Order: sequence, then structure tokens, then C-alpha cells
Amino acid sequence: MWSVPIETFSWQGDHVRMIDQTRLPGERVEIEIRTVAEMVEAIQKLRIRGAPAIGIAAAMGLVAALRPHRDDEDGFRSKLEEYGRALAAARPTAVNLSWAVGRMSDVARHHPDMAAAALWERLEQEALVIFEEDRRMCRRIGESARGVIREKAGILTHCNAGGLATSGYGTALACAYVAQEDGKRIRVYADETRPLMQGSRLTTWELMESGVDVTLICDDMTAATMAKGEIDLVIVGADRIAANGDTANKIGTYGVAILAKEHGIPFYVAAPRTTFDFSLPDGSRIPIEERDPAEVTHGFGAATAPAGVKVYSPAFDVTPARYITGFFTDAGLLEPPYETSLQVLRGETQPD
Amino acid sequence: MWSVPIETFSWQGDHVRMIDQTRLPGERVEIEIRTVAEMVEAIQKLRIRGAPAIGIAAAMGLVAALRPHRDDEDGFRSKLEEYGRALAAARPTAVNLSWAVGRMSDVARHHPDMAAAALWERLEQEALVIFEEDRRMCRRIGESARGVIREKAGILTHCNAGGLATSGYGTALACAYVAQEDGKRIRVYADETRPLMQGSRLTTWELMESGVDVTLICDDMTAATMAKGEIDLVIVGADRIAANGDTANKIGTYGVAILAKEHGIPFYVAAPRTTFDFSLPDGSRIPIEERDPAEVTHGFGAATAPAGVKVYSPAFDVTPARYITGFFTDAGLLEPPYETSLQVLRGETQPD
Repeated sequence: MWSVPIETFSWQGDHVRMIDQTRLPGERVEIEIRTVAEMVEAIQKLRIRGAPAIGIAAAMGLVAALRPHRDDEDGFRSKLEEYGRALAAARPTAVNLSWAVGRMSDVARHHPDMAAAALWERLEQEALVIFEEDRRMCRRIGESARGVIREKAGILTHCNAGGLATSGYGTALACAYVAQEDGKRIRVYADETRPLMQGSRLTTWELMESGVDVTLICDDMTAATMAKGEIDLVIVGADRIAANGDTANKIGTYGVAILAKEHGIPFYVAAPRTTFDFSLPDGSRIPIEERDPAEVTHGFGAATAPAGVKVYSPAFDVTPARYITGFFTDAGLLEPPYETSLQVLRGETQPD
Repeated sequence: MWSVPIETFSWQGDHVRMIDQTRLPGERVEIEIRTVAEMVEAIQKLRIRGAPAIGIAAAMGLVAALRPHRDDEDGFRSKLEEYGRALAAARPTAVNLSWAVGRMSDVARHHPDMAAAALWERLEQEALVIFEEDRRMCRRIGESARGVIREKAGILTHCNAGGLATSGYGTALACAYVAQEDGKRIRVYADETRPLMQGSRLTTWELMESGVDVTLICDDMTAATMAKGEIDLVIVGADRIAANGDTANKIGTYGVAILAKEHGIPFYVAAPRTTFDFSLPDGSRIPIEERDPAEVTHGFGAATAPAGVKVYSPAFDVTPARYITGFFTDAGLLEPPYETSLQVLRGETQPD
């Protein structure tokens, strides 16, 4: 039985402990989060990243930050709303963040007369439930790829949609972990993923930790690696999926999808149902944040570009649904035409 | 009148002086080359790079290395052959290297009875002629793009096919420099070009020096930048072009060509006639060197991947001719069907 490669973050009763992913792969440093400001900083500086992980960690961070207010009957609920808003705004593109925070608010709304101390305990419980649900959900995502991944398959992935991006198996990498567990001798190719190099720093690290055969390539080597016949399928994660299947994910995903299409390689997105945002009809409405140019010009301690150079650095891009062969989800494999399967999903994810 | 942005390398009577491009953009350091070993090291470590530049510099390096042998009537010609072979083998993919060295050998062959000292002077003259021809050639390449580049055009380029890759205007960037000179307010987007970042280190540097509007993007941002409508055409250089138009160039070029096609953006290759290798019927015969994995894992002074990770790092890829809208050359713009224009070129480049 395969075991989770690394405990990315965990609840410690009064604080969140998490691996500072900006220090990988050089050193494993764990940090403790007790306040909203610390959690917002950790999310914005990408100490914790990946749509599912930041949602769950934010819920835990909310519980930690509310702990000192447990006896404040007058102020507790307004603190919950205030902290929730601040956490939800930490990164605008990831829908999981507002989803997880919203779920915590709902708990309070469903218990309008509950005392602050009891409500805090109920919120703590809810955060742990979200955490456990994510572990089971990721496992199911990985299982949904079983029929697609063949023995000795070469799998290309972009960024890190792995255990480090979730509370366990990961999403894209869950498919690899389950295949490995099933005895298929898969080979994973990890795109470096500039500017923050989640592929080279994180994906290679956790796959090596788990004994999965992994090869690192630079982003601009993807087309040549495909032309060489090394890649049988692409699996990436998602930050937000519109109702029509258009998918926002780490910058570079859209390019990989085009290259896959041109080489006749199937392109899959692995994501939990919560990543679908049915309020958005298509990808044109997904807000795309731009990031600090210094990430491009000074990412590794040395200047790699002239001082003062103009930089365009979008954090995400949108891959139109027509490039996507299917979605590996915790509700199974969704394939085109998506209309029916997405309707089912919509029914399941938005009860009552 | 536009002036050459930087004297990339020059002949100093008894040695070659060149900018050490591995030190850019941090500091401008010039090195002196007097021996074949020094020149081979400089070429292999990419202190000087770009197909035209390494050809001409190798010819100059040959002259410098032969200088101490000017009085050795018995050994001079065998030294010429020995040094020439070592220089030609420094980088296998670039045809200009063997072309320039071969041209020096031809001088000796055409003067079988010339004394060593006189032959050395004749070789020095030949190297300077090659240098001057390159300056004129690059200028003509830039002029061949005049009819294609419109006012306010957004031009994407990959790697550095600029003044730093040649003895003057560059090839791909010559098109931008001539357009700028013509008063067109062009905008250039420079791909970072991992792993060695010639785009961010060199292309941005020389364009900023020359007052050309340049924006840096990471390689995995290319597709999103195209989708945003910022790019009107792509211009890249070439290391070797097969008889059918298939083009070997810096790794990543092939991917950019596919992305351009998918967005309906014209994709041009800018190269001197000497880059065409008519001995190769198509791109499948072009040898592709693989480079040191450390360039990918330790490129920034800090480890960006776990110790011992497997890396696939081809230095070049081959872009099939069907993705190429046309070639900007010193013989003018070549457009499909290439058969006729390439036949003309073949006739011109291989007289008698």
C-alpha cells in the first residue's frame, strides 16, 4: 500500500504546521501559523500552494486565528466574517479558497444561537472534516484514471498538482501514484514550470520520495520531448474550471495543451469537483492575477535579466475545453460531450 | 543611423577580445583568446554563442593560435589542419563553425606554395573579410523583413539571435533593428529561453541598450501572450537549415512554431545563407547535442531540483518546414514553395 509522501500541513490543536515549500528542494523547513496575517502571507508567498491545499489550510488558519476570540460572544461571529474575507482575498483565482472559507461561514449560519466556544469547536471539527474529505477525494481522482493509464505509460505533468498541493495524494499526481500502486511501471516527465519552478522543486521531489520514475525537463523542451515519442498522455491540475470545461491552471498549461493536440497526445485535467465554478459560463470570465516581475528576473538569488526590464508575468492561463480530452475527478472520468456529465456534477456539487 | 549595440568580439592583431556572455547581464567582462584550447572552452561554455559569431570567432581564434607558428615552414600547414579540426568539433550542431574553419583551410589549399609567414597574413586577412561580410550580411537579413514588419508590430523572439550572436546587427534581431531604424514603433517580446536564459540575459540587454521596446516573458507564458493578441509575428534564428527548410535552432523553437500556427501568427526564421546545409535532405539528419543536466538543476547559483534527479536536456530542436512562413536571409525573403528559392540559394552558395 502506497503511503502519502509527505505531511504537507496538519492541524496542531491551536495552530497549523506546514512545510515551507519555498525552501524546497534545498531544505525541509516547517512553519507554524497562528494568525490570519501569517496565513495570508504564507498563501501569497506560495509557502503553501495548490488550490485544494490553500483552501483547507485557510479553513484551519481561520480556526487558529479565531481561537483567542472563543470567549468573545459579541465579536466572535464578526471576526469570523472579517477573517474569512481576508483569507478568501489572498489569491483571487483559486475558487477553493472562497469555497472552504464559505463552508466555515455556513457552519456559523446554520447554528445561529450557538455560543462562541461551542461554535469554535464546531468550526475546528469542520476544518478537520474538509481535510479528511480531501484525502479521500484525491484518492478517488487517482482511481478515475485507472482505465486510461497503460503499463509503462509516459506521463507529462506541469507545475505541482501533487501531495504537496493537497492534503495527500494530489490530483494530477494521484493518477501516477495509483498507477504505481497498481504495479504499472510508469514514467513521469515534470515540466520545470517557470517562474517559480514548482515542477523542478516540488513535483520531482515528491515523486522521487515516492519511488516514481521522474525526469525533469525545461518548459521549452516539452515539444521536443513529445516529438521524441516519450509522452503518452498529459495530466495537469486545475485552479478553476468554468461551466463549459474551460480550465484555468498554472501559466504554461495552455501551451502544453496545444503541443499535446499537435502531437496527437491526450490531455487530461485532474481536479476535485469543487474546482468547477458553474457561476462562470466559460473561461473568459476567470480573473487572472499578474505576479511580481522580480519572480522572473530575480528568482534564484541572482539577477537573470537587466535591471529595469519590462516583464509580463501572468500567474495562470486558460485552456479552452476543446483541448481537453477529459477530466479525472472524484466523481469519475468525465469525457466530452461534457454537457451531461457536468450537469450531473452540478447537481451533485450544489445540493438543495 | 543605428549603430551596432555592442562590439561582441574583435580581432586585436594577436588575439581575439570578446565579451564573456556568461557574465551578462550582471557585468560586462571581456576576455582575451590566444589558443585553440581557450577558444574551444569559450565556445563550449557559451562565453561566445550564436552560430555566426562562433564561426567567425573560431576563424580569428585559428589565426591567433597559428601566430606562434608563422616561422615553422614544415609544421604550419599541419597545425592549421589540427587546430581547424579541434575548433570545428567544439559544437557539433552549428554548421557555421565547420564552414568558417573550412574556408580558412581552403585559403591554404589555394596557395600551396606560399611561405608560412605570408600564409598567416593571408589567413588573418581572410578572418577579417569573414567578419566584415557577416556585418553586411546581417544588415541585409534585417532589410529582407522590411515588407513584412508593420508599424507597431509585436515581435516574439526566442533565444538570442542578435548582435551578441553575430558581429553586428544579429539575424532575428536585425529585423527589429532595421524596423526601429525605419521609424516603426515595434514591440519585442523576448522568451526567457531556459536553461541558459539567453533571452532574458542577452536579448533584453542588447535591445534595451539599443532603445527597442522589449518585454521579457518566461517560456511557458508564450501561448498566453499570443492568446492575448500581443504577437503579430515570430522571428527566430537558426543553427542549421536542411535542404527542405527543416530548421534546427535553440531548444524551444519548435514549440513556439506550433503555438504560432495554432494562433494564426506567421513564424519566420532569420539566417544567413551559410546556415543552409544542402547536404542534409531534411531535419531528421541534424545531430542534436544533449547538454549537462546541471544547466537545468543548478542554473541560478542555487539548486532548483533535488540532488540526483534525472534530466533530459536537448540543446536544439528541429522545426519542420511546414511551420515556417518564410526565411529572412541575406539573399532576401524566401517563402514557400521553397523548391525554387532554395535551388537559387544552392546555386549561389555552392558556386562551380
